[in-house]
Amino acid sequence: MLDWARRLDAGDPLGAWRERFQIPDPDLAYLDGNSLGMPPKRTLERVQTVIRDEWAGGLIRSWEDWLDLPQRVGDRLAPLIGAGAGEVTVHDSTTVNLYQLVVAAVRLRPDRSVIAIESKDFPTDRYVVDGIARARGLTVQEGFDDLGGVAVAVRSMIDYRSAEIVDLAAETARARRAGALVVWDLSHAAGLHPVGLHAAGAELAVGCTYKFLNGGPGAPGFSYVAGSLIEQLDQPIQGWFAQVDQFAMGSAFAPRPDIGRTLIGTPGIIGLAAAEEGIALTAEAGIDAIRAKSIALGRFALDWCDRLGLDTSTPRDDHRRGGHVCVHHPNARAVTARLATEHGVLADFREPDVIRLGCSPLTTRYGDVARALAAVDSMR
Amino acid sequence: MLDWARRLDAGDPLGAWRERFQIPDPDLAYLDGNSLGMPPKRTLERVQTVIRDEWAGGLIRSWEDWLDLPQRVGDRLAPLIGAGAGEVTVHDSTTVNLYQLVVAAVRLRPDRSVIAIESKDFPTDRYVVDGIARARGLTVQEGFDDLGGVAVAVRSMIDYRSAEIVDLAAETARARRAGALVVWDLSHAAGLHPVGLHAAGAELAVGCTYKFLNGGPGAPGFSYVAGSLIEQLDQPIQGWFAQVDQFAMGSAFAPRPDIGRTLIGTPGIIGLAAAEEGIALTAEAGIDAIRAKSIALGRFALDWCDRLGLDTSTPRDDHRRGGHVCVHHPNARAVTARLATEHGVLADFREPDVIRLGCSPLTTRYGDVARALAAVDSMR
Repeated sequence: MLDWARRLDAGDPLGAWRERFQIPDPDLAYLDGNSLGMPPKRTLERVQTVIRDEWAGGLIRSWEDWLDLPQRVGDRLAPLIGAGAGEVTVHDSTTVNLYQLVVAAVRLRPDRSVIAIESKDFPTDRYVVDGIARARGLTVQEGFDDLGGVAVAVRSMIDYRSAEIVDLAAETARARRAGALVVWDLSHAAGLHPVGLHAAGAELAVGCTYKFLNGGPGAPGFSYVAGSLIEQLDQPIQGWFAQVDQFAMGSAFAPRPDIGRTLIGTPGIIGLAAAEEGIALTAEAGIDAIRAKSIALGRFALDWCDRLGLDTSTPRDDHRRGGHVCVHHPNARAVTARLATEHGVLADFREPDVIRLGCSPLTTRYGDVARALAAVDSMR
Repeated sequence: MLDWARRLDAGDPLGAWRERFQIPDPDLAYLDGNSLGMPPKRTLERVQTVIRDEWAGGLIRSWEDWLDLPQRVGDRLAPLIGAGAGEVTVHDSTTVNLYQLVVAAVRLRPDRSVIAIESKDFPTDRYVVDGIARARGLTVQEGFDDLGGVAVAVRSMIDYRSAEIVDLAAETARARRAGALVVWDLSHAAGLHPVGLHAAGAELAVGCTYKFLNGGPGAPGFSYVAGSLIEQLDQPIQGWFAQVDQFAMGSAFAPRPDIGRTLIGTPGIIGLAAAEEGIALTAEAGIDAIRAKSIALGRFALDWCDRLGLDTSTPRDDHRRGGHVCVHHPNARAVTARLATEHGVLADFREPDVIRLGCSPLTTRYGDVARALAAVDSMR
């Protein structure tokens, strides 16, 4: 297995991109880039520039340039998820952004009173939905089988445990026929999969930049709103960064007519600049090449799970599988801990029995996956 | 005036602290530290450590340490505003935090339907209040003269234009007698004034760290909740960082019993670490020494406004004056621009006719104030 992996690494067209990252310990098999991506080397330089030249040097004057940074970084991210210029902003946290867009979506369906979500979806998404439903007297429906009467469906494009991919276009179309809006959570898709928001007819989405986009710990999230919907968007947190002619400081809130109306308060510039570097690097490498390697890494992992007899529920179909492979193990928590302490393999444990092996195409080697599977195999 | 300023600078007990900041242009008179504080030298070092050692070196393992960083930084900030340990978190933006606490406060007064705010208060505060009122069918009342029937009053402790200080204890007590809660905005107070939240009986407050706390552009805001109120706090955005036993990823939201329940989504670690350095430096210098110099800088500025015949509405009473001096001028916008281009003085224009001279005690020299006033005087 290790030999085979070595040959695949040697022939990997994206193999050289790993050198663009700061990797102090090359012997570590890091299979958690889907929780926290590695730092691009350029990120440290960029942050130094922001602090020394822009903050220290320009002081308040630098706000002229920073003011629309959330939109500029959004425009760099947009093609990576199949969105257009002026449809994406990078700002705040994924949780806050999800809250904003779900409330806005509910307001677009005033005659309906149901929000649909799956109980297996990522916790913060469910908590946010439950909070909105409670505040507004709405009902939370489990799952998406029947969307009749549903105002808003909140869905992850790629499942954070199984890595299963939802068919964005088909499910968006089905929701539209039923009169429901979908708010897509792209946290496990952005930077890994071309997504194709426009092509799918998707109207609203959020996601994070600290996973496959390598934006840094707690890097800002993003908001996507289809151009045709922006002017109808009525968000609950009315902040001054969404205000038309912000520095006129008018007494009445008048939201901007463009994607800037998704913004809230003053954006954190250092974190946003760091996120831009991860996004820019991803764009340079090319999202299609990244997706191709992601598929190949997954296929390699699944092949070896089968040969070793490891139990996985990750989809076999390349087009339905995201960027990680989950291995079920009765002692998954302990095994994940021992992978780190005894085998130099960093993976993720997810309740109840999942060892999650995240493959981040710009930094993950086939050899990392092979080492992880061999180590899991040795602990049975 | 310049000679007098030079003597005051020579005898300034905080004068040496300016050397702890990155100041590439020592000839610049920077009077906008109340919009964006200068960068402490240690901030660049800290951010490099976070990126190189913690992010690149520790990768996902560093979250063990980062997880409670919002609370730890909050505990460092707490004594600077007269709060106790476990009552402050540093996270998200001031606008988001204000939204959270105002909604939570409204929920604590379910039998009342009025939010009070002044139309002259900072725009984002008013926009937030208007948005909450609209969503919940509440009435917005102008001003605080009559608090009977008011659920929540949203107030700035220090006015962003005039620098007038509200008597925190007296106004908190008056609100309590009327049955209203106050959410204090400390944006122009934190890091400048000891505030004394506990001593004043204040229950809820927010503020920012990028002004007098020198936390960086768009540095995170903070939330303060008096210990006795924390367990009653019911915030609208239910995020996973507020969840008890977060990584158990339970299906139902159960907010933490401690100040952690003010958190929302994943906090931006790089920006938060930068903010911690500004806060730590402020704590080292001592908030009482900072306040003493703030009073002296203001008195110096007002004395010279009088001698030069410049028009100011900043309070004369030292105890009612915050960290800036406003000079009214019919061509304030143009004069502020010319201060920068012709006189090496950076100040702030605020509608309609205010030149705002911000004095940030750790970095502002008496000489900076003198140069600014002389320059304004020369443009009449």
